[in-house]
Amino acid sequence: MYEIMNDIKKGIQYAFQTQNNMTIAMSGSGHAAMECAVFNAIEPGESVLVAVNGIWGERVADIAERMGANVHRMVKAPGGIFTIEEIKKALAKHKPVLFFLTHGESSAGLAHPVDGIGDLCRKHNTLFLVDTVASLGATPIFMDQQNIDILYTGSQKALNAPPGTAPISFNERACQKMFNRKTKPVSYLFDMTHLSNYWGNDGQQARLYHHTGPVSGLFALRESLAILAEKGLEESWRHHKEVSGYLWKGLEDMGLKLFIKDKNLRLPSVTTIAIPEGYNWREMLLYIMKHHKMEMTGGLGPSIGMVMRVGLMGYNCQKTNADMALAALADALKNCKKSKA
Amino acid sequence: MYEIMNDIKKGIQYAFQTQNNMTIAMSGSGHAAMECAVFNAIEPGESVLVAVNGIWGERVADIAERMGANVHRMVKAPGGIFTIEEIKKALAKHKPVLFFLTHGESSAGLAHPVDGIGDLCRKHNTLFLVDTVASLGATPIFMDQQNIDILYTGSQKALNAPPGTAPISFNERACQKMFNRKTKPVSYLFDMTHLSNYWGNDGQQARLYHHTGPVSGLFALRESLAILAEKGLEESWRHHKEVSGYLWKGLEDMGLKLFIKDKNLRLPSVTTIAIPEGYNWREMLLYIMKHHKMEMTGGLGPSIGMVMRVGLMGYNCQKTNADMALAALADALKNCKKSKA
Repeated sequence: MYEIMNDIKKGIQYAFQTQNNMTIAMSGSGHAAMECAVFNAIEPGESVLVAVNGIWGERVADIAERMGANVHRMVKAPGGIFTIEEIKKALAKHKPVLFFLTHGESSAGLAHPVDGIGDLCRKHNTLFLVDTVASLGATPIFMDQQNIDILYTGSQKALNAPPGTAPISFNERACQKMFNRKTKPVSYLFDMTHLSNYWGNDGQQARLYHHTGPVSGLFALRESLAILAEKGLEESWRHHKEVSGYLWKGLEDMGLKLFIKDKNLRLPSVTTIAIPEGYNWREMLLYIMKHHKMEMTGGLGPSIGMVMRVGLMGYNCQKTNADMALAALADALKNCKKSKA
Repeated sequence: MYEIMNDIKKGIQYAFQTQNNMTIAMSGSGHAAMECAVFNAIEPGESVLVAVNGIWGERVADIAERMGANVHRMVKAPGGIFTIEEIKKALAKHKPVLFFLTHGESSAGLAHPVDGIGDLCRKHNTLFLVDTVASLGATPIFMDQQNIDILYTGSQKALNAPPGTAPISFNERACQKMFNRKTKPVSYLFDMTHLSNYWGNDGQQARLYHHTGPVSGLFALRESLAILAEKGLEESWRHHKEVSGYLWKGLEDMGLKLFIKDKNLRLPSVTTIAIPEGYNWREMLLYIMKHHKMEMTGGLGPSIGMVMRVGLMGYNCQKTNADMALAALADALKNCKKSKA
């Protein structure tokens, strides 16, 4: 099993584009990685800055508040972009030990730009934590180059593995902070002191029992990372871009409006469609489920009632699937009652 | 997926011998269920009593301390039994909101008696939390009859499913306590308010997205619970008893001493052998691994250096496997150097 875990570590390092030694897979969903990052990087009473422009920022703020952090939110409507200037001001004002940003805001369909933010955080002595659950493998991220201090993702999005494992990586700055705490993290299960030993990252000869990992999930994660490495990140990014571009064009040709107007800010893995005027989104989704046996979803958290979402990622990211989605939507537009507005 | 989850709930109710509505499977290992129980049942500053007679009590005490509980330990050497009288005194003294006991102390090979403790806890207005990770399905437990307020187990022991899901159940008393808290549990992921809705236990029509469950693990758990129900709990208990009895006799015939002297207190799923005098347990286990490709383990936590452990549970619980273990141990006794003591 240790060899499998070592392979996974190398696979994550490639997928994240990082050399970080402190790279592991959490036994749990992306939320487990989210809690692990917050619990380990922050101590109660410390200042945290969270960019909220969809559901994931809200969740992180909630988690940080529960463990006793002093949470400051920067809030935008779903899909909103935080400018470097805005982040700079907020960092100067709140002097946070951690700044959280979602790279792939799947509830809004946004791929938030990351360049420059890591440097800014470094200047303010702030750790930069980025969520790539929905984006990793679908659109570029470079952990080391972009000076991201903590990065995590999930297994079941573009990586194609079953849900239940979640890659996470901490750089030296993050390790310095989390391994020199005054208090223990609130969770024993997510304590990186233990997990670091469990994954053989702490240089100790003995890897002690900590918990029983999801063995079959880890085998599957290793395979998915191997497939990504074989295909190549660039090819995975190119492919997601091509297929999502094809879907977007099809949607616009049909007269639908995409929720994120700027093409360059759209998340390739999750496409958000603005609810067409006069239609009931729930009715449309139910129609598609019933007549096309296809699951599309509405918004999530703050984007509920604003969007319908189509996911095309990993092996599901194919033009034939885009065509099926387009046909189902066209049929729903035709057959779902439009209100007389 | 909701139907799968509903089936799992019914399967757990049968395995736990409970009618509790608040019965779910955690997305995580047995440790996740352990943290979930502690995080939800206790608020910071509240008094908790933990029976420590092996590694699991230690873990629960650690977890409860991290989340700010006022932890009182009752400590015995690994495998020690807590008498009703001792528990009664400690409950009266510490007035805990929660009392933790491990039913299957796998680090010591002990099946701790449970009868009568639930009634005692009820009298003292204390919730009774029991860990059955290593024992469920291997030896009898009756959640409702025995007045256990919170019970959890893991998927990968006698249940035979892959690791990564963990059944847990809360009775009405436990729900009263945990759903009338003043503070939120420290973990968002393990918050039973959310998990209760996620599993459709809160009576709400809408089951909101909380996190992505380990889908394939849940399918496997459902199947393992179905197999247990088909076979019957009584038959599973009888079978584990028969095979472990066979192993114990073989070990004693070989001149080995079992760590738990009283047969009725031994855990059928995990047998602990006292280290034979003059032998190095590490050397013996390495010899068995090398020459018999069989993994037996040493102690865990406080029982390290005291025992060697043989696991026979679920589909692995077969006389042929007991024979293989006996042959490997006999070979190790012959070939590992005995010190001239």
